[in-house]
Amino acid sequence: MSKGLFLSFEGIDGSGKSTQARLLAERLTADGRSPLLTREPGGSAGAEEIRALVLQGDPDRWSPETELLLFTAARRDHLERTIRPALADQRVVICDRFADSTRMYQGRQGLRQTVDTLHDLIIGREPDLTLLIDMDPKAALARAKSRATMEERFEDFGLELQQQMRQDFLALSEEFSERIHVIDGNRQPEIVAQDVYAIVASALMDTASG
Amino acid sequence: MSKGLFLSFEGIDGSGKSTQARLLAERLTADGRSPLLTREPGGSAGAEEIRALVLQGDPDRWSPETELLLFTAARRDHLERTIRPALADQRVVICDRFADSTRMYQGRQGLRQTVDTLHDLIIGREPDLTLLIDMDPKAALARAKSRATMEERFEDFGLELQQQMRQDFLALSEEFSERIHVIDGNRQPEIVAQDVYAIVASALMDTASG
Repeated sequence: MSKGLFLSFEGIDGSGKSTQARLLAERLTADGRSPLLTREPGGSAGAEEIRALVLQGDPDRWSPETELLLFTAARRDHLERTIRPALADQRVVICDRFADSTRMYQGRQGLRQTVDTLHDLIIGREPDLTLLIDMDPKAALARAKSRATMEERFEDFGLELQQQMRQDFLALSEEFSERIHVIDGNRQPEIVAQDVYAIVASALMDTASG
Repeated sequence: MSKGLFLSFEGIDGSGKSTQARLLAERLTADGRSPLLTREPGGSAGAEEIRALVLQGDPDRWSPETELLLFTAARRDHLERTIRPALADQRVVICDRFADSTRMYQGRQGLRQTVDTLHDLIIGREPDLTLLIDMDPKAALARAKSRATMEERFEDFGLELQQQMRQDFLALSEEFSERIHVIDGNRQPEIVAQDVYAIVASALMDTASG
């Protein structure tokens, strides 16, 4: 009997990671599994309340440090109430963003070391596997802009910043090369999904035999 | 011209610390100063929102770790938005509870080391002076119970726990003996207030001449 598997999707806004997370959940469901599709910030009742506290109102009303604490509180709640119970039930957990997003976004504000210390202190868990959907920043930005969401703060990036973010995500994939798989997202979603599924299926086989 | 001075009041529930904080603010105002009277959790717009998130609803809906992160986020906001600006304006800041309360309450949940690491990482500031109002736990409990507050979780302690908390606070005053002054709270509030004022007036003279 296979154990649980904890997967995260990461990438710049508009890279298609949420679509890929959904397609993977559908494919695993078709395989007879019952994957849990979740997302951050949020993913549990308490974490969704914290998400609302952070994302609503003036984007500048929290300092980077306070925002980092709130996101970490949300992650802890999400981990305790949603992720760990699902893994204990031997389910595949598919999480749209996890700690790598914090390393990226709060790390850009000069807090990378604080992020890491806080992660070790409070979270202490990485995904078993992370799928980084890598995409041309220009195309991703156009896609992100075409969406109308209430949380524009995460979308309100110019091209130059998107390009920097992409480079930072690729650097992160080298830092965590054993865990983070880079997937070329500049293709039809169905094609990208095949690559994602191949990697996940392989990990599931390893888990089942491990 | 004197610099700002950061004071905190600590003690078990019903010890009279909030009354003493208020009496001190009144006395300093009568002296021609403009002290800032504030309290935790809360004390700034963002911190009050976090306070509401933590204290409303089922007391058990947050784990000790998540609660610690939320309280620390509130403290960071309070420090940035309320305390530091007032100190920069050379005011006396009187805070009803600060980090010592977290050391006590979350420390009792086995998190003292996490509390300290988080404090060093994110807060990095102690009060210049802390007034610990020490009081007979039985009398304090009776007083606490006579109050009807929406936040009963902080009041819902039996006598044995109050006794333990008193001992823990006294131990904390030895750990931070240079900063924490223990005041006998088993007297009329006006008498206690005289002791408090004497200590604070002395500190203000040191600050003015320092």
